Amino acid sequence: MARVQARMETALAERLPQAGIAARLHEAMRYAALGGGKRVRPLLVFAAGELVAAKEEALLACASAVELIHAYSLAHDDLPAMDNDVLRRGRPTCHVKFDEATALLVGDALQTRAFELLAAPGLLASARQLELLATLARASGSLGMAGGQAMDLASVGKTLSQPELELMHAMKTGALIRAAVLLGAGCGRRALAAARMSKLDHFAKCAGLLFQAIDDLLDCTASTAALGKTAGKDKAAGKPTCVSLMGPAAARDYAESLRQEALQSLAGFGAKAGRLIALTNFICARQF
Amino acid sequence: MARVQARMETALAERLPQAGIAARLHEAMRYAALGGGKRVRPLLVFAAGELVAAKEEALLACASAVELIHAYSLAHDDLPAMDNDVLRRGRPTCHVKFDEATALLVGDALQTRAFELLAAPGLLASARQLELLATLARASGSLGMAGGQAMDLASVGKTLSQPELELMHAMKTGALIRAAVLLGAGCGRRALAAARMSKLDHFAKCAGLLFQAIDDLLDCTASTAALGKTAGKDKAAGKPTCVSLMGPAAARDYAESLRQEALQSLAGFGAKAGRLIALTNFICARQF
Repeated sequence: MARVQARMETALAERLPQAGIAARLHEAMRYAALGGGKRVRPLLVFAAGELVAAKEEALLACASAVELIHAYSLAHDDLPAMDNDVLRRGRPTCHVKFDEATALLVGDALQTRAFELLAAPGLLASARQLELLATLARASGSLGMAGGQAMDLASVGKTLSQPELELMHAMKTGALIRAAVLLGAGCGRRALAAARMSKLDHFAKCAGLLFQAIDDLLDCTASTAALGKTAGKDKAAGKPTCVSLMGPAAARDYAESLRQEALQSLAGFGAKAGRLIALTNFICARQF
Repeated sequence: MARVQARMETALAERLPQAGIAARLHEAMRYAALGGGKRVRPLLVFAAGELVAAKEEALLACASAVELIHAYSLAHDDLPAMDNDVLRRGRPTCHVKFDEATALLVGDALQTRAFELLAAPGLLASARQLELLATLARASGSLGMAGGQAMDLASVGKTLSQPELELMHAMKTGALIRAAVLLGAGCGRRALAAARMSKLDHFAKCAGLLFQAIDDLLDCTASTAALGKTAGKDKAAGKPTCVSLMGPAAARDYAESLRQEALQSLAGFGAKAGRLIALTNFICARQF
């Protein structure tokens, strides 16, 4: 994991524009995307790539694209009009370090760059690249991450049912996690057989819900210092979470059942799924 | 032109998500992208498509994608943290009609949808589609439209030289105008010969600068009612424009010289360039 994380830092640094014209914007884009983060989504891209003996160059492009989409969403979510947060990865958020207009443009331009990376010629067969690009776009857009964030904002002060909460989480967080897995598995010479793809997709859905459940638990049990972002925000903002819906003990059981289900989906893949299994456990091992 | 404008309204309406989940976001996306606008960029896509006997379905996808990028940029530019405008196309801006968080997500999701449209299978040869997608991404990102907007914000209260102003205009407005022309010309069965492509590209650059010069002139001579957006904003905000740099008479001469240069670049294309010529004149015919 440390090797992939270091490789990602270099890959992203190479793929983001240097100063030159629009220097301040470019500096802010690098600030928002470099220098931290667990790189869970890139790790998932690479781990899924193990299943198909994927091409390294294609994996790097996919991992960078997914991570830039994630970084754009953080820059925008932290803005005063959205979650109004001042701390991210232990540092001031982008609009605090720069200004709101710059943070807005940073998010816009990071999104654009993500799709530009996936449109580079020769990563994979062109038709496959278009498919992966469409997968990432669907996951990020109004029926995925952006739509989930809209639902999240609209849910403040409301009580959601578990299916409603799961739909919101599947869109807000799960869609991009799932896309990371599908993109990694799409970087092989051949597509996975349909039955295996279906198993992997089920794994990806469970992993996405698991990631959000752990995030909900951490928000109310971990310290700001440990998280690198403001703790206790969900409760303060009156946001429905697994914890507010079930209480902390049942939320932990729920997370554990998702972990089990995720791992079961990988049963047929043998040793090639080793990294995906390790990552699933890593997601759960973040400190409560 | 009226036929293309009507066709675009239908095409965009079909390509934007309906209510369902994230209903308010989808309503706001439709508000921001439908029901108005001159559709200059789609008109340019279709007009450039005439040069290469382009496929209608590919032109519609390209025109929709370019227009959604434009609509996203308007939703974000109008936000309080950027240009803080309340009127657009004669109606309240998106954040006034909905709220700031929604307008932010509207822009995000419209951008995503633009790239998703260009990744649809079978519009053109896949490698060509990737090329056009990369062209649109480069034009929209930090070295194009988003970078130009950052420069625009940074230029408030400053005096720019004419080359500095032209660079800012070429990025902020020109890049997407140019992309519209290149995308339209990319929808034929074969690519244009290099010499013709170079002429067309020069036309596109001139048209982009011309469009912004006319916009600068209109901002200080037309009424809010005629524009459908707040007039006199550049001067009030202390933004450098053609008019602030040269004065109105010289700015008109500058626009006229750009129009001449644009038309000269089309000389070798014969009757097929008829629509591009008409559009160039249409851009200039907007009322001072």
